[in-house]
Amino acid sequence: MVIGEGVEWGLHCCVALAWLDDHAPIATARLAEIFELPPEYLKKRLQPLVREGILDSTPGARGGYRLARAPERITLMDVVAAVEGRTDAFRCTEIRRRGAGAARARAEFAEPCGIARAMGRAELAWRRELAGQTVADLMAGSHENASKYVRRFYAGVTG
Amino acid sequence: MVIGEGVEWGLHCCVALAWLDDHAPIATARLAEIFELPPEYLKKRLQPLVREGILDSTPGARGGYRLARAPERITLMDVVAAVEGRTDAFRCTEIRRRGAGAARARAEFAEPCGIARAMGRAELAWRRELAGQTVADLMAGSHENASKYVRRFYAGVTG
Repeated sequence: MVIGEGVEWGLHCCVALAWLDDHAPIATARLAEIFELPPEYLKKRLQPLVREGILDSTPGARGGYRLARAPERITLMDVVAAVEGRTDAFRCTEIRRRGAGAARARAEFAEPCGIARAMGRAELAWRRELAGQTVADLMAGSHENASKYVRRFYAGVTG
Repeated sequence: MVIGEGVEWGLHCCVALAWLDDHAPIATARLAEIFELPPEYLKKRLQPLVREGILDSTPGARGGYRLARAPERITLMDVVAAVEGRTDAFRCTEIRRRGAGAARARAEFAEPCGIARAMGRAELAWRRELAGQTVADLMAGSHENASKYVRRFYAGVTG
């Protein structure tokens, strides 16, 4: 089970964009520099965040990204769902209905499979935890120097 | 993010093996029939469960599988970890240290990245939920007819 790099990139970019909000919109190339990421690939990774209304994207030479809403209103679940989709990680293919189950009455399968339900409860716990944390929490939990260095780097000050 | 079919197959097989414990060991082909699964492929999927001490495998013509311990002592986490591995789904590549972070003192990165910690908390919630449910719980949560049909099917009684 693997969560793609798009989630890591997306969350770090959300935090950086929040810190640079007074400079927004931030061009893809400038945002990519902050983490030494390949700009074209980053652009692709941020597209789902734009599509899902987490980032605003302004086209053109002076265009770029900004957060579409306040950091308190962007949860980790929002970002993970945008990048990874909303489909459950566990996919029940109803093997209980096959073989030994084929002879059973259809009504016996009215309730979802207990294995799918058990796996679903665990995913719900994961989603709840992600939904309870916001980009604002990530900002608050960062090292006190993190925002300063991002802002300095963006402004091109080396000292 | 996708959990492979090995988890679904593995959990259903654990439950079926528990119901058929008095017939054990259960040959791969017979176990595969119960869910209409391809026997060779099922064998491959069950290997990690044998390796992790969840199933016992007896070789030979009269060989097969049985649970290696009581259903109460096999958690969903055991099966998921055996099949999917114990690596975190979210992999932090420390992009915070690059670009804007490159100028920062190493000591500032002594604490794990807040984004990795936040993602880790969610995975912990998922793992805890999986660790709190056992194969015995799956058996108890099954439809009352499920075990009867598996046992009948295995015994070859059609009525």
